[in-house]
Amino acid sequence: MSHEHIASAFDRDLEAVQAQIMKMGGLVEKAILDAAESLDSRDEEKAEIVRKGDRAIDALEEQINEECARIIALRAPTAIDLRLVLTVMKISGNLERIGDYAKNMAKRTSVLVQMPQIEGASVSLKRMARDVQLMLKDALDAYIQRDAELASDVIHRDHEVDQLYNAVFREFLTFMMEDPRNITPCMHFHFIAKNVERMGDHVTSIAEQVVYLVTGETPDEDRDKQDVTSSDASVSGV
Amino acid sequence: MSHEHIASAFDRDLEAVQAQIMKMGGLVEKAILDAAESLDSRDEEKAEIVRKGDRAIDALEEQINEECARIIALRAPTAIDLRLVLTVMKISGNLERIGDYAKNMAKRTSVLVQMPQIEGASVSLKRMARDVQLMLKDALDAYIQRDAELASDVIHRDHEVDQLYNAVFREFLTFMMEDPRNITPCMHFHFIAKNVERMGDHVTSIAEQVVYLVTGETPDEDRDKQDVTSSDASVSGV
Repeated sequence: MSHEHIASAFDRDLEAVQAQIMKMGGLVEKAILDAAESLDSRDEEKAEIVRKGDRAIDALEEQINEECARIIALRAPTAIDLRLVLTVMKISGNLERIGDYAKNMAKRTSVLVQMPQIEGASVSLKRMARDVQLMLKDALDAYIQRDAELASDVIHRDHEVDQLYNAVFREFLTFMMEDPRNITPCMHFHFIAKNVERMGDHVTSIAEQVVYLVTGETPDEDRDKQDVTSSDASVSGV
Repeated sequence: MSHEHIASAFDRDLEAVQAQIMKMGGLVEKAILDAAESLDSRDEEKAEIVRKGDRAIDALEEQINEECARIIALRAPTAIDLRLVLTVMKISGNLERIGDYAKNMAKRTSVLVQMPQIEGASVSLKRMARDVQLMLKDALDAYIQRDAELASDVIHRDHEVDQLYNAVFREFLTFMMEDPRNITPCMHFHFIAKNVERMGDHVTSIAEQVVYLVTGETPDEDRDKQDVTSSDASVSGV
C-alpha cells in the first residue's frame, strides 16, 4: 500500500464528509430563513416545520461525527489532514447549535402568534436573520474553497449583526416601557434577537476556523465585545 | 515496541490531559460561584476578576485541544481509546462555553451595580448557579470514575435547574409589570438566568457523554423541552 494510495483514500473520505457538511449547511440556512419568515408572517405551520426539521440536522451532525471518528481510526491522518478532520467536527457542532437556535425561534413564534402583534418588531429580526444566513453561506463557501479572504470578510460582517442586535435591544426596551402589555411579547422578541446574534457568533467561529486552516493563524478578535448590551451602562439610560 | 508499551504510553498521555480537564473544571466551578456571589453582593471587583479569569480557561481549552490532536497523531488510537480522546475534546469545549457564560454574567453585574437594586432577584440566581456548580462537580467526578449512575443523576438534576429558571422568568416578568423602572435591570437578570440555564445544558451534555462512554448508549432526553418559557403560552398570562 503506497503512501499515495493512503492519501487519496483519505481525500475521498474527506470529500464525502465535506459533502455532508454542505448538505447540513443548506438545511441550517433554510431553517434560519424559514424561522424568520414564519415569525414575520405569524405562520404557525411553517414554524412547526422548522421545529420538526431540526431532527434531520441533529442526525446529520451525528453521522458526520461518526464518519470523522471512522476516518481518524482508519486513516490515522497526521498534521494538516488531522486538523482538517477536527475542523469538520467543529463546523458540524457549530451548525448544530445554529439549528437549535432556529428551532428555539420557531418555538417562540408559536407563542407570539397568540399575543397582540407589535408593529415592526419582526422586521429588524428578519433582516438580522437574513444577514446571518448570507454570512453562513459565505463561511461554508470559504471553507470549501479554502478562501481566507472571504472568511475574514464574514468575521467582519458579524460586527454589523451585533450592531443590529444592539439597536433592536433598545427598540424593544422602548416598547416595553411604553406599554406594560408589550412586556411579555417583547421578552420573547428579545430572546429571539439574542439567539440570532448567537447564530452570528457560531458562523464567525466557522469563519475563524477557515482562516486558521488556510493561514495557520488565529484571527485575534474578541467576539464577545460587540454585544455592548451586556457591558455598556448607556443601555440603562434608554 | 510491544503493544503493551504503546497502550501504556497512550494511558499516560490520557491521564495528563485528564488532569488538565480537572484543572479547567476547577476554574470553571470557581467562575460560576464567584460570578453568582459578585452579582448577589454587588461586588464589582470580584466580577472583574471573573471576567479576566476567563482567559486562563480559554488557554487551557486550547492546550487540551492541541494535546488531544498530538495524542491522536502520535498514538493513532482506535475504537474506545479514540472515543475517549474525542470525549475529552468535547468536554473541554463544554467547559469553555460555561466559562463564557460566567464571564457574561460578570459583565452584566458591572452594569447592574449602577442600577437600583431589586430585592430578592439575585437570590434565586445564586441558588441556580450553586446547583449548576454542584452538577458540574459531579459530572466531572463521574467522568474520572467512569460512573454512569452519577452521570445519570446529573442529567436528572438539570430538570430542577430548568424549573428554577421557569420560576425566575415569571418572577422577573412580574417585577417588570409592577414598575417600568424595573424593566432594564430585569432584562439583565433575565439574560443571566438564561445563561445559568444554558450552563446547566452544557453540564448535562458532559454527563451524557459520560453515560455514552461507559454504557455505549446515548441517554434519549430532549434537553430543550424543559424550558417551557419558549413554548408555553401560559407564560403570557403572567
